[in-house]
Amino acid sequence: MEGVNIIAPQSGAAFEMDKGDTLTVIDPLGKQVSDMVLFNRADKKERISSGKTMDFEETILLTKGNFLWSNRSQKMMEIKEDSNGRNDFLLAPCSPETFKIMYNNPSYHPSCLENLYKNLMRYDIEIDEIPTAFNIFMNVQFDATGKLKVLPPTSKQGDLIRFKAEMDLIVGLTACSAEDSNGGYFKPINFIVTNHEGIIKDITKNFQ
Amino acid sequence: MEGVNIIAPQSGAAFEMDKGDTLTVIDPLGKQVSDMVLFNRADKKERISSGKTMDFEETILLTKGNFLWSNRSQKMMEIKEDSNGRNDFLLAPCSPETFKIMYNNPSYHPSCLENLYKNLMRYDIEIDEIPTAFNIFMNVQFDATGKLKVLPPTSKQGDLIRFKAEMDLIVGLTACSAEDSNGGYFKPINFIVTNHEGIIKDITKNFQ
Repeated sequence: MEGVNIIAPQSGAAFEMDKGDTLTVIDPLGKQVSDMVLFNRADKKERISSGKTMDFEETILLTKGNFLWSNRSQKMMEIKEDSNGRNDFLLAPCSPETFKIMYNNPSYHPSCLENLYKNLMRYDIEIDEIPTAFNIFMNVQFDATGKLKVLPPTSKQGDLIRFKAEMDLIVGLTACSAEDSNGGYFKPINFIVTNHEGIIKDITKNFQ
Repeated sequence: MEGVNIIAPQSGAAFEMDKGDTLTVIDPLGKQVSDMVLFNRADKKERISSGKTMDFEETILLTKGNFLWSNRSQKMMEIKEDSNGRNDFLLAPCSPETFKIMYNNPSYHPSCLENLYKNLMRYDIEIDEIPTAFNIFMNVQFDATGKLKVLPPTSKQGDLIRFKAEMDLIVGLTACSAEDSNGGYFKPINFIVTNHEGIIKDITKNFQ
């Protein structure tokens, strides 16, 4: 479909949005997580903050109607639609060390942190500046004791989440590389950006 | 008592620790939160990460036996003792905007973010680099729907938490300034740093 950008399995993308644009992230096959980070395009020291978002929204679980906030207490995005309804904002993007420490895998493994960094570096964003991502479709369960368990996503083929940009943004987005987060196999993530009139924007870049 | 450093109500402190040192944070009067942030003294781009910590420790609620991890997946501290047992790592430090947005208070109000920044600036740490803090004694309750409620701390007079440094650190520490987090009134926080032989270190600085 025209205007649909495809993030290949275990890879990522970075692109720009204008205030008022809409980003639609689609899970084309189901059970696939997508990590998203946001930076203020006018000043990249302002970025998405899990701590500010959970504080202002007063919830761990963000869905339709909630806003994503920055470290400077500004609204960055609003969630306008969320057909699956389960996302995570607790856990940091999987990184090379995740696979060494949690999976006991000493060899090279693709990761969201690396895929975010590889795509965001053309915006002069350093790896240490990549914050905890908003983990679309990620199914992290918790109980009253706080114990966390990562389960396969509940998202089905074609499930989508729609965000409206509240400021000019740089967006980093992945098709997550962690076995346990994605039901054991890796799938693509699709996304579309439309402007305030609903017209699809061409944001073709060399995604990595 | 000799070697006890006092953070006045609604203020903060910053100081250095060597690997192997122990930090003891005491709630001298009870029901008082203390926000703590950590930076690698050798490279301040490495800092405490709520997302990495909850990922590696597989829990929202950190207490004795848990480690605090950095954005580079390194252990920064181990919690060796925790007489109260309830801390928070979900919510960002209260900031000037917290009081405008959550408390509907348009006038000046002291905040943890400002108190961390005022003390950390002598280490060339910028306000945008201050991450979500480990909120000692903070009592944030959540239910299965993820909804968050900030209740008064359960800490009593003399409750303490003890951390061992796993690397050379710069530490920012506050006596929290938010009404709802502290049972409605503001108290001091005491702390002691000892070296690996248990000898108290003199870390006197001009705390603000």
